[in-house]
Amino acid sequence: MSEPMTAAQLVEMLTSRPGYTSSVGTRVLFAEPGRVHLALDRRPDLLQFSGFFHGGVIAGLADHAAGGAVTTALPTGRIAVTVDLHINFLSPADGQSIIAKAKAIQVGKTVSVANVEVMTQGNGEERLCAFCTVTLRTVDMPSKGAR
Amino acid sequence: MSEPMTAAQLVEMLTSRPGYTSSVGTRVLFAEPGRVHLALDRRPDLLQFSGFFHGGVIAGLADHAAGGAVTTALPTGRIAVTVDLHINFLSPADGQSIIAKAKAIQVGKTVSVANVEVMTQGNGEERLCAFCTVTLRTVDMPSKGAR
Amino acid sequence: MSEPMTAAQLVEMLTSRPGYTSSVGTRVLFAEPGRVHLALDRRPDLLQFSGFFHGGVIAGLADHAAGGAVTTALPTGRIAVTVDLHINFLSPADGQSIIAKAKAIQVGKTVSVANVEVMTQGNGEERLCAFCTVTLRTVDMPSKGAR
Amino acid sequence: MSEPMTAAQLVEMLTSRPGYTSSVGTRVLFAEPGRVHLALDRRPDLLQFSGFFHGGVIAGLADHAAGGAVTTALPTGRIAVTVDLHINFLSPADGQSIIAKAKAIQVGKTVSVANVEVMTQGNGEERLCAFCTVTLRTVDMPSKGAR
Repeated sequence: MSEPMTAAQLVEMLTSRPGYTSSVGTRVLFAEPGRVHLALDRRPDLLQFSGFFHGGVIAGLADHAAGGAVTTALPTGRIAVTVDLHINFLSPADGQSIIAKAKAIQVGKTVSVANVEVMTQGNGEERLCAFCTVTLRTVDMPSKGAR
Repeated sequence: MSEPMTAAQLVEMLTSRPGYTSSVGTRVLFAEPGRVHLALDRRPDLLQFSGFFHGGVIAGLADHAAGGAVTTALPTGRIAVTVDLHINFLSPADGQSIIAKAKAIQVGKTVSVANVEVMTQGNGEERLCAFCTVTLRTVDMPSKGAR
Repeated sequence: MSEPMTAAQLVEMLTSRPGYTSSVGTRVLFAEPGRVHLALDRRPDLLQFSGFFHGGVIAGLADHAAGGAVTTALPTGRIAVTVDLHINFLSPADGQSIIAKAKAIQVGKTVSVANVEVMTQGNGEERLCAFCTVTLRTVDMPSKGAR
Repeated sequence: MSEPMTAAQLVEMLTSRPGYTSSVGTRVLFAEPGRVHLALDRRPDLLQFSGFFHGGVIAGLADHAAGGAVTTALPTGRIAVTVDLHINFLSPADGQSIIAKAKAIQVGKTVSVANVEVMTQGNGEERLCAFCTVTLRTVDMPSKGAR
């Protein structure tokens, strides 16, 4: 690649690849080094039995946002993979969409950490529905052929 | 309901409802009060960019298994909902399926806790790929009309 | 008691009782409903082998600050006890003191959650050295006789 | 040192150094590569306001046991330091002593993970009072002069 990607291009690339993230409809709202916001819209196959977004779906969005927040703060060619994730579910994710707002609070050579606020959005209001902390480690980005 | 459900019937009911859990193909392998095993088979839309099961999908399966393990140990009419979830990703979930083996380690009046071992299975072997602890609180099961 | 205590009086009371918290020298810096700041000064018996504050000491201060932040936001006569605690150690706690800044992010009838930033302070600077999320449940405050 | 230390010698050395761990009275009960058991006896300055072992003291013991379990499984000269710790408090630590039983569930080049069961012991019985998962990273053991 002749020019390094912007943070937004990098997160867009990591999000749009075939797989879980694109298949659930993840949208990139915002990206700068160390901060990434992602959104997901309500769909029947993403809900739990009470009609709220499923905890696994919320955790998956938070995880991907955290990975983006840290990866955009790393040197080119490096990517952050999740070591562990801790999430508190604070209120029902009952809105039309959920938004994960991730912020790297530590970027290290081997280990990094990001916090993620997950908002539920609908009827013109936005409410905190989950809070997540993700610990990640840094590896070389797999080359195209290797994927 | 004239007869109380068995643990297996209860988990089957909670798993087969329309929504995320049934849509990803969750299968109930085993259920007794306090212990539930669930499986999920590889599908392109459940993977991350390296071809392993996505962290959110693993967390979602662990979460549902933990909910089942605690709910089957509660009095009839009560259900456990997740307060928080902590998961360590230990090795690539690169098998043909993943299996979440949940066990309640505390069942309380208001708060319960379950541990979940997630195995990745393929080519005749099974390996631990994630370890998860879920904290849940107990609420009344929503009545049929309310769902 | 004829007058309800202020947040500062309540946290001071919970901190100064005989036991671990007072014995390590915990100082109350700030308290208002939902927010509590506590400090601890360097002492040889609070350090690990590299001369930094020990992880258990940091976790203990964060735990107590979280309990104060939630308890000050509860109705009189109720107290928050820890269900689980998750802490990331971000950098060496090498300062002359550590300060735990807790903020309740959810106050519920049965379950509450607080985030805690732990700073290490020395040589005129303050640096984030740990980030902690604490989940608590609400119980009746033990009466004086019961303690 | 002419001969490598045994696991028990290594954990004893890490525990008996001046600092928090020795000052609270940590005793090594058992150590083999990947598994370490530590104990702590009741003392007024280790308790919270209800007369149970303080959460920070429990977390500190679990943390040190986890560090021992992983470090004994690493090559000589390497030591595991805590990245993050998650602990669930399951029942009052009301016994005469607490015992932390740590087991490494993953030992990696950069990141390792240990689970810790903490038991409270008294009146001839032993009960699980906390469950803890610790994520650690591997660093070179500080040389004697550097400490």
